[in-house]
Amino acid sequence: MKKFINSVDTMLGESLDGFAAAHSDIVALGAERKFVRRRALSPHKVALISGGGSGHEPLHAGFVGTGMLDAACPGQIFTSPTPDQIVEAATAVGNKAGVLFIVKNYAGDRMNFEMGAEVFDGEAASIVTDDDVAVDKSTYSAGRRGVAGTMVVEKIVGAAAEQGADLKTCAALGADVNARTRSIGVALTSCTVPAAGTPTFSLADDEMEMGVGIHGEPGRMRLKLPGADAIAEQMVGAIVSDYGGKTSGPALLLVNGFGGTPSLELYLMYDAARRQLQKHGVSVARSLVGCYVTSLEMAGCSITVSLLDARMVELWDAPVHTAALRW
Amino acid sequence: MKKFINSVDTMLGESLDGFAAAHSDIVALGAERKFVRRRALSPHKVALISGGGSGHEPLHAGFVGTGMLDAACPGQIFTSPTPDQIVEAATAVGNKAGVLFIVKNYAGDRMNFEMGAEVFDGEAASIVTDDDVAVDKSTYSAGRRGVAGTMVVEKIVGAAAEQGADLKTCAALGADVNARTRSIGVALTSCTVPAAGTPTFSLADDEMEMGVGIHGEPGRMRLKLPGADAIAEQMVGAIVSDYGGKTSGPALLLVNGFGGTPSLELYLMYDAARRQLQKHGVSVARSLVGCYVTSLEMAGCSITVSLLDARMVELWDAPVHTAALRW
Repeated sequence: MKKFINSVDTMLGESLDGFAAAHSDIVALGAERKFVRRRALSPHKVALISGGGSGHEPLHAGFVGTGMLDAACPGQIFTSPTPDQIVEAATAVGNKAGVLFIVKNYAGDRMNFEMGAEVFDGEAASIVTDDDVAVDKSTYSAGRRGVAGTMVVEKIVGAAAEQGADLKTCAALGADVNARTRSIGVALTSCTVPAAGTPTFSLADDEMEMGVGIHGEPGRMRLKLPGADAIAEQMVGAIVSDYGGKTSGPALLLVNGFGGTPSLELYLMYDAARRQLQKHGVSVARSLVGCYVTSLEMAGCSITVSLLDARMVELWDAPVHTAALRW
Repeated sequence: MKKFINSVDTMLGESLDGFAAAHSDIVALGAERKFVRRRALSPHKVALISGGGSGHEPLHAGFVGTGMLDAACPGQIFTSPTPDQIVEAATAVGNKAGVLFIVKNYAGDRMNFEMGAEVFDGEAASIVTDDDVAVDKSTYSAGRRGVAGTMVVEKIVGAAAEQGADLKTCAALGADVNARTRSIGVALTSCTVPAAGTPTFSLADDEMEMGVGIHGEPGRMRLKLPGADAIAEQMVGAIVSDYGGKTSGPALLLVNGFGGTPSLELYLMYDAARRQLQKHGVSVARSLVGCYVTSLEMAGCSITVSLLDARMVELWDAPVHTAALRW
């Protein structure tokens, strides 16, 4: 295992300390590092809280800040945050406007966020993201997995909350954005979870995993690694087919790196995906390319398409000031 | 070689097409993809142009935009841009205020930028960056290599140019920032140049290269991979020692990923580097953590320290709107 690490036990804490120190103008760390919250809270808006296993950075702590999340609860690597993390985050950032939990569809995350929401003494609602079209159930999920589309939900609902939308409106908007969003990922290499010390899975030198999950869960199939255009054709084909032919409206195209794939290749995949979408008559109105929802150092990427309405595009464009997303 | 690629010959062009399409609000691509320039030019300011081999993205094209570069010339992967690229970029974005070339200290880059500057029909000056303290001469350079500190120079001089500083002032400022900046890098794995198809160098499973260059050039030594704190201690020690004890003034700390190291580890290294700097009495005033000056998919990182003056800190803080840096 080749990593920058002092010990498996202290790795997450040291990284969170670094994150909080590097972005002390934007975030503050909760007691015992249970959550990352905005440094300056807005007491009259719906508070958005997300979280999940660590190892997917910048998701979620990198999206805490004006126009996006109010707090994020980082679990151990690839492990759900505990209910008490969620309760403490909600108590710290919540107010009379209520709290909206944004939860990726994994059994552990759903269970712990539900328990947290029950214990939390305040008005709360939850939305669950499940944008991954690769498989209908998976290692850690009943139903589809929540993957990179989660950040699209967080950005758009975050903007609405910032503009004063109430809890019910935010929850409905988040569910609507999630329903309009489709993702699929492909891995060229595995990642290594520090506590395990060995790669989660193995791929031959000429193989890739089509439809991989963000924890290295199996996808649809193993394939001989084809050219980038053929990969993009399959990925975009899977997404478009999942829309069932209903692909009108302005599209957001997110090409997301899993952590080990460099920018040069991600932009090449963006170019390939965009051309494939054009073949299907989908025109790209907004774009994002980079490592946003990662799987430690996995080489690979996901493609996310979100078919927005005009109001959602406005909310996407609205100002955001977080560690990882800023415009 | 596991990469998202259609062919070695088209890889760079496809990636540039994707980059230009994804950021069409900020940049435009020159004819035959010879350069990337700002979409909206400012006709009365000094034009800043950089460039170099590709494979270091987002350097330099990702730093084209308001507050930073006016154009960037992407060479083939790890290959200097040609003089005609430089001439065409300067002709496209230059004006009466003159052109400043920012050149990393590699023999090919220096030669081609010099030839370009000679042919260019307009007022021009050049600055050379050589912030890498690892070695005094290297595979592609006489003298020190220009590495991640180059982006610090580009940001600070870019802000000054935006505020109306003249060519002479910009050139002197850039030389001053470079002189205040020190970097050193470490590799945990090699990268693979697509045209070569095999890793540039090989490291045993328990080895790292201390002082590696951004093209995989040898550094100071091979070491058994120690813990993160010990790595940071060596890297910060090399930088502080190079300052010869003169480490006053506000420090900018940049922890830069080489492409294959995830955010979780980079923030951990930031935390470790910051603690080491404190031991040496250096207090961090500004921070940046992420993949900014990469070596394709190499796992590893560099640490850059820049001891600024108050005016330089203001210029660092000034607004920037590029694909890769925005605040």
